[in-house]
Amino acid sequence: MSNEKPGLPRGTRDFSPEVMVKRSYIIDHIKKIFERYGFLPLETPALENLSVLTGKYGEEGDQLLFKILNSGNYLDGITREDLNTTNSRSLAFKITEKGLRYDLTVPFARFVVMNQNDIAFPFKRYQVQPVWRADRPQKGRYREFYQCDADVVGTNSLICEAEIILMVQEVFKALGIEGYTLKISSRKILDGLTEVLGIPDRTVEFFTLLDKLDKIGKEKLLAEFSKAGFTDGFISSIGPILHPSSGTESTLKQLADVLSVSDKGMEGIHDIRKTLAYCQQLGVNFSNLQLDPALARGLSYYTGIIFEVKVRQVIIGSIGGGGRYDNLTGVFGLPGISGVGFSFGIDRIYDVMDELSLFPSRQERSTQLLIANFGHEAEEFALGIITRFRNAGINTEVYPDNEKIKKQLNYANKKQIPYVLFIGAEELKAGKFPLKDMISGNQELLTIDEALQKLQLRG
Amino acid sequence: MSNEKPGLPRGTRDFSPEVMVKRSYIIDHIKKIFERYGFLPLETPALENLSVLTGKYGEEGDQLLFKILNSGNYLDGITREDLNTTNSRSLAFKITEKGLRYDLTVPFARFVVMNQNDIAFPFKRYQVQPVWRADRPQKGRYREFYQCDADVVGTNSLICEAEIILMVQEVFKALGIEGYTLKISSRKILDGLTEVLGIPDRTVEFFTLLDKLDKIGKEKLLAEFSKAGFTDGFISSIGPILHPSSGTESTLKQLADVLSVSDKGMEGIHDIRKTLAYCQQLGVNFSNLQLDPALARGLSYYTGIIFEVKVRQVIIGSIGGGGRYDNLTGVFGLPGISGVGFSFGIDRIYDVMDELSLFPSRQERSTQLLIANFGHEAEEFALGIITRFRNAGINTEVYPDNEKIKKQLNYANKKQIPYVLFIGAEELKAGKFPLKDMISGNQELLTIDEALQKLQLRG
Repeated sequence: MSNEKPGLPRGTRDFSPEVMVKRSYIIDHIKKIFERYGFLPLETPALENLSVLTGKYGEEGDQLLFKILNSGNYLDGITREDLNTTNSRSLAFKITEKGLRYDLTVPFARFVVMNQNDIAFPFKRYQVQPVWRADRPQKGRYREFYQCDADVVGTNSLICEAEIILMVQEVFKALGIEGYTLKISSRKILDGLTEVLGIPDRTVEFFTLLDKLDKIGKEKLLAEFSKAGFTDGFISSIGPILHPSSGTESTLKQLADVLSVSDKGMEGIHDIRKTLAYCQQLGVNFSNLQLDPALARGLSYYTGIIFEVKVRQVIIGSIGGGGRYDNLTGVFGLPGISGVGFSFGIDRIYDVMDELSLFPSRQERSTQLLIANFGHEAEEFALGIITRFRNAGINTEVYPDNEKIKKQLNYANKKQIPYVLFIGAEELKAGKFPLKDMISGNQELLTIDEALQKLQLRG
Repeated sequence: MSNEKPGLPRGTRDFSPEVMVKRSYIIDHIKKIFERYGFLPLETPALENLSVLTGKYGEEGDQLLFKILNSGNYLDGITREDLNTTNSRSLAFKITEKGLRYDLTVPFARFVVMNQNDIAFPFKRYQVQPVWRADRPQKGRYREFYQCDADVVGTNSLICEAEIILMVQEVFKALGIEGYTLKISSRKILDGLTEVLGIPDRTVEFFTLLDKLDKIGKEKLLAEFSKAGFTDGFISSIGPILHPSSGTESTLKQLADVLSVSDKGMEGIHDIRKTLAYCQQLGVNFSNLQLDPALARGLSYYTGIIFEVKVRQVIIGSIGGGGRYDNLTGVFGLPGISGVGFSFGIDRIYDVMDELSLFPSRQERSTQLLIANFGHEAEEFALGIITRFRNAGINTEVYPDNEKIKKQLNYANKKQIPYVLFIGAEELKAGKFPLKDMISGNQELLTIDEALQKLQLRG
């Protein structure tokens, strides 16, 4: 036992009650809306076999996996030679078998493969759980953080894309986030473009550069393309992507001109048209929906329609994104499962809402009433009535000790409890009790019934 | 990339949507009631420094900690000599720094110490998160499982004990679990007894044997005491513990006779009396509350009042328990923080509710309505009306593909969706649509407004 000051591992956080009630506000709303759209919760374990995780996130990802030392005598069967290699990577394979979940997609794919005979396809699941990455921690980047995904797999229907767009809008509406742009495109547009331009072998480079657009702007991006040896012809050909027309329809026409010889590219245009038609039928709000043919979503596994959400009032990366992928489970030997999903960035949504003061001052999960404690007689009365408040749906506590009033009020203030009820000897005789509004400072003399009614009306 | 069949690490589980909606039913109810009583959520990271975890759970516990291999070149700075010891335990200290949370209590204590200046004491927090133990997996014992704790620290008031008893009863009432016994005692009773009997050095042995009572019964337990060399005088002295009188008051008198010379023991009796008096004032249901002076709660850190809940209709261990501890944070250099807590056994509560069929057939989180898909025209109509159902609070989905009706109904059945709405060409003309009740098999011809009203009334 050490008496040292305890600390947290780098890149991890505690979520205090104050933060938790606000995080729960976000997550509760998202879950409820997921469920309105027929998505059901799934949870997978934090521990996965390394054989499931390794090779799914590229070489860099493999190095960012947290590995669990085998339990018991993990050196059993390790030869002196193994140890003397002092090659940490090869030894790691021998002394670890399990790792921590790196994202929610690979465990989801594993679940689908293991339960393919029991699942009712199309399978709509959501998952809100932490993931772990041994990344270098920095502002806004953590080693343990939540992901919040909804996916539907086992259908190619673009109704799913349209429903996800509406669902995303519903989430932000429920959270009070306005002034955002939901960008949409299709990976097939960019794939078609690399086909047309004859650079299929430079796709990775092309996507990596394109992803810089948001950071460096169009002019600098063109210069970078030039520097990377892309021809002038190429650069003028990607014009419709970097400088799309103002209207969706005319942008699509512009793209169709460039992509007419690419089946893939034309398929992308068709998908976008059809998705937007479904959106129209569903009543999607088109004012914050924007076709952005330069959208790439990095080197991810997307193959069809892709989405990304950015807020305009706060400088922060995207607060959500997703898209369609062709082959979720192929890596586990089950080909042909296509799906489409969306992932909300909980941490960034929290920061946006905090900065724009969008959290309601009264949080449903917080305590609404503190009954102050002035000794034996008051205590007995308080315990006799407290259940009435709780049964009326009012989160209520009684201060457990007969402390100075200042200390009890300080407790209420620190815990942001909006009302305090005082029960003193005189009040007990009169049957009327002061109810203090901790925000305005006002105090009213009320019977218990009146106090109950007042707090209930408020809730 | 391997094409092997993926699997789960031993002792871990996926929670499928079907299980998740039922688990959420339990956890949502518990959280809501915790909040009614003024407890607020806290979350701590899964990763903790091993310096925080080690030495807190006994030597056995230390061996059950999952350790995370340091990232990067973890062999850096490890000498050839270190490696050649082939002593896995000593090497582990050098190549691991972090471990997985083993319970929720130690991280809670760490949080309190690190945030002692910001916390409003008494601090009431709840925490529902997974923990990990490298135990040998067996039926009902997992390597990754949830704990669900509520604690109040920073006060000695026995009001907290009484409120926890009422809160526990409220949880089981809300879940529909009847026929349980909430046992209560004080560790001071047993401590007083070891004092009176002059066996303070044999406390561990005494507690370990006493914990077997439930498994082996009174007769066999007495034989075991005898075998362990406890004297006949001792055995007759523990009579009041093993054979308490029928009424609480007379049991307490019986105990007072034995414990009269022990301050500690008499304090225990006083605590129980005072707690029960508070319970009376709060309106606790005494019919399922039982004073059990043989209650020990193992070798845990409890020092005052202790609780345990057992169901009578199902043979399973306790489904919850807790108690008061003197010194939560002393191990981290902050003495004098007393508290009391309770922990619900989510897995066992789930098993009990499943066995007794206590889960409601209609789960709030599940989908209530499927709109079947019969092609273009129906699709367009469906997308035009689906938001009305969702806005009315009805979890609704549209089948995304125009598949055979049998396949769509099979989907609804597998997902336990209670209603299916059919939109066909003829129905579109007539404006009336068949709504099929998937449980009774009945079908009604309704307008959209009527269908909406019917499903809303049901919700």
